[in-house]
Amino acid sequence: MTSPVRLALLGCGTVGSEVVRLLHEQSTDLTARIGAPLEIVGIAVRRLGRDRGALPVDEALFTTDALGLIKRDDVDVVIEVVGGIEPARGWLVEALRAGKSVVTANKALLAEDGAALHDAAAEGRADLYYEASVAGAIPLLRPLRDSLHGDRVNRVTGIVNGTTNFILSAMDATGAGFAEALEEATELGYAEADPTADVEGFDAAAKAAILASLAFHTRITAADVHREGITEVTAADVASAKAMGCTIKLLCIAARGRDAAGSETVSVRVHPAMIPLTHPLASVGDAFNAVFVEAEAAGQLMFYGRGAGGAPTASAVLGDVVAVARNRLAGVRAASESAYADLAVRPMGEALTRYHVSLDVADRPGVLASVAGVFARHDVSIATVRQGSAGGGRPGSGDDAELVIVTHMAPDAALAATVGELHGLDIVRSVTSVLRVEGEA
Amino acid sequence: MTSPVRLALLGCGTVGSEVVRLLHEQSTDLTARIGAPLEIVGIAVRRLGRDRGALPVDEALFTTDALGLIKRDDVDVVIEVVGGIEPARGWLVEALRAGKSVVTANKALLAEDGAALHDAAAEGRADLYYEASVAGAIPLLRPLRDSLHGDRVNRVTGIVNGTTNFILSAMDATGAGFAEALEEATELGYAEADPTADVEGFDAAAKAAILASLAFHTRITAADVHREGITEVTAADVASAKAMGCTIKLLCIAARGRDAAGSETVSVRVHPAMIPLTHPLASVGDAFNAVFVEAEAAGQLMFYGRGAGGAPTASAVLGDVVAVARNRLAGVRAASESAYADLAVRPMGEALTRYHVSLDVADRPGVLASVAGVFARHDVSIATVRQGSAGGGRPGSGDDAELVIVTHMAPDAALAATVGELHGLDIVRSVTSVLRVEGEA
Repeated sequence: MTSPVRLALLGCGTVGSEVVRLLHEQSTDLTARIGAPLEIVGIAVRRLGRDRGALPVDEALFTTDALGLIKRDDVDVVIEVVGGIEPARGWLVEALRAGKSVVTANKALLAEDGAALHDAAAEGRADLYYEASVAGAIPLLRPLRDSLHGDRVNRVTGIVNGTTNFILSAMDATGAGFAEALEEATELGYAEADPTADVEGFDAAAKAAILASLAFHTRITAADVHREGITEVTAADVASAKAMGCTIKLLCIAARGRDAAGSETVSVRVHPAMIPLTHPLASVGDAFNAVFVEAEAAGQLMFYGRGAGGAPTASAVLGDVVAVARNRLAGVRAASESAYADLAVRPMGEALTRYHVSLDVADRPGVLASVAGVFARHDVSIATVRQGSAGGGRPGSGDDAELVIVTHMAPDAALAATVGELHGLDIVRSVTSVLRVEGEA
Repeated sequence: MTSPVRLALLGCGTVGSEVVRLLHEQSTDLTARIGAPLEIVGIAVRRLGRDRGALPVDEALFTTDALGLIKRDDVDVVIEVVGGIEPARGWLVEALRAGKSVVTANKALLAEDGAALHDAAAEGRADLYYEASVAGAIPLLRPLRDSLHGDRVNRVTGIVNGTTNFILSAMDATGAGFAEALEEATELGYAEADPTADVEGFDAAAKAAILASLAFHTRITAADVHREGITEVTAADVASAKAMGCTIKLLCIAARGRDAAGSETVSVRVHPAMIPLTHPLASVGDAFNAVFVEAEAAGQLMFYGRGAGGAPTASAVLGDVVAVARNRLAGVRAASESAYADLAVRPMGEALTRYHVSLDVADRPGVLASVAGVFARHDVSIATVRQGSAGGGRPGSGDDAELVIVTHMAPDAALAATVGELHGLDIVRSVTSVLRVEGEA
């Protein structure tokens, strides 16, 4: 019998214990698929003696000395499901430099300082796999890094945060406001006690950086990603989207473009946006994730599944473990990160998008002309205008009126400047909602 | 500069010429991604001197001697986009045995005699890649064969034939019958002059065999697949599905199960079926493909995109070419086919499914009791019954009446026997429609 591939597990929370459980349950299949058994030789945890729900492992495997475990000679593969920047970075750099394969779900670290890990992997000639870091169980990174390598990806649009998708889906279904929907999500366990990382878009921005790096062969960090969360999305915005045949989603968008000099660039952003109900992403409900990819030859592709949770994430981790174990047995290393394209990151102001703007205006002749003039001055072309009465009075009755304007595609800075000037117009009582619009019109 | 990886292309039709075009257009990117340039050293075609729309290759590369090209010492990778069983099988076996990597889109050959190719690949220690054989551009085989290898796939449900999906989508949208919708598909280029392979389900059955082999680590051939086409789906069936909140799709279904002795089995089938509009596959329209995967830990996944066409298929071919070129440069071979599970194929009669049966019955008391008795005798449990008048007369008026019955899950043989007995019942004027129902109720 071939000698086992020996695993060190860092972290034994929701995902870690599922990894242990699956390794145990599937052990016959995994051995057949790899050609050698997998063996856990140690599990690093913060505290010993915790109740871990009768995991099928020897209690003696647990240790609080993660670094000591990583350094052991009998460790071939390090699985990290702890998260956070430090101490995870130090551990993984140590492991990779020593030539140990690493499987990690740590999106924050990859997005903040993926370069440190990729460089350490190159130095130690070790495998670095991280399918679980984006969109949980959905096989996504491997298709991007392998299957589409003969093609040219132009745009990636994703729903990659389950918490915010649950909240926005609830707002859409019930008409609830953000606070009420967040409360429901928290009660049902879809939002954490401190939901900041999710609702402010930090989690999605980290995933956007990882996706963009792979899709565009360029090192993108979280700092390169323009980020807006969903805390300011109102029930009125959601109703407004519905009236347009749209729904609001928190999207991560990475798109290829060109700067003024004609050089290729990439823009990466995370923000709520209206998308038409006919777009494949519109029907991705609850806590599901989906990523829509547009490539030159392949056309439109979509990948859909569960983005979080112990078992789905553990499935992605184990898929990577099988791959690195096979590579070790074959004495090879997978193709490493490719950042050859090294595209410049385009500032958000230059990103092309469309705006949906709702205004409360004085209901008198000439208002539309004045408002339209502001758009024209900023070179923003208007696609549709809808006028209605704001307060329930009849249009033209002298009350306030509502004006809803959707633009054609324009640079974000021009759109923002337009909205800024509208705020100062005396006939505009208030700008009630500003939302970006994505997807085919 | 690293010396080039040298390609022989067999076939230069729609897909082949797209491969040539993409190799030319993306050559800088492909070289950077692989670490060496790709070079076409020969293109085998049936006839020389045809107008190939000014392809960016030297005319001298064309040859009619495919076997001679394959045998040349300066060929590293053979790309086959000819299709059909022979002479393709002979060519690819020759190439693989000689240690040349093969990239093929030949679903018919893989489904009929994949074993010959896999065995030759093992013998020559060569790579065999075939992402383009199923669902065109959608990265599907690699996720199944790699990403999900740490998990356990329970069921694969796919829409893998664009022609039939176009026809069924048209029938659903316009109320047209099969013949009319087929005519439209032919006019628009979605159906071939001889549509048999598509509309009779042969194409989908070949893909089902390939998917099932990968998902269940078992060699499945086209002969193992139960196959029914869509030629007998009527406008009335489509209307009936609509009334149930369903739509009709040609599905390929591969599912894990157990036989009477408790041993694991797999059933693989292709047939039209009703699925609820809420199922993610229901909204896959026109000529798009999608495959829905249910795995133990990962849960529900879906892969969506263009299943056919020159450019999408060429994208999948080139993704494979990049992979095998990298493997050659690294001096390694990818993990080969894994057929260790070797599950028995369950006969269609034992496959579990649900039936939707429409009957024209005599409108008199006791009819439902008689009909229900037939179902009971075959141990088939009824989920819902709907009674209406068939001829437009009022129910209970003595005219014929319509009876629509949907069953719970039962073995296909029991359902078929039930329908057989209903045909013989004197109160049943006719069995107007029998359709399987898939997806969550």
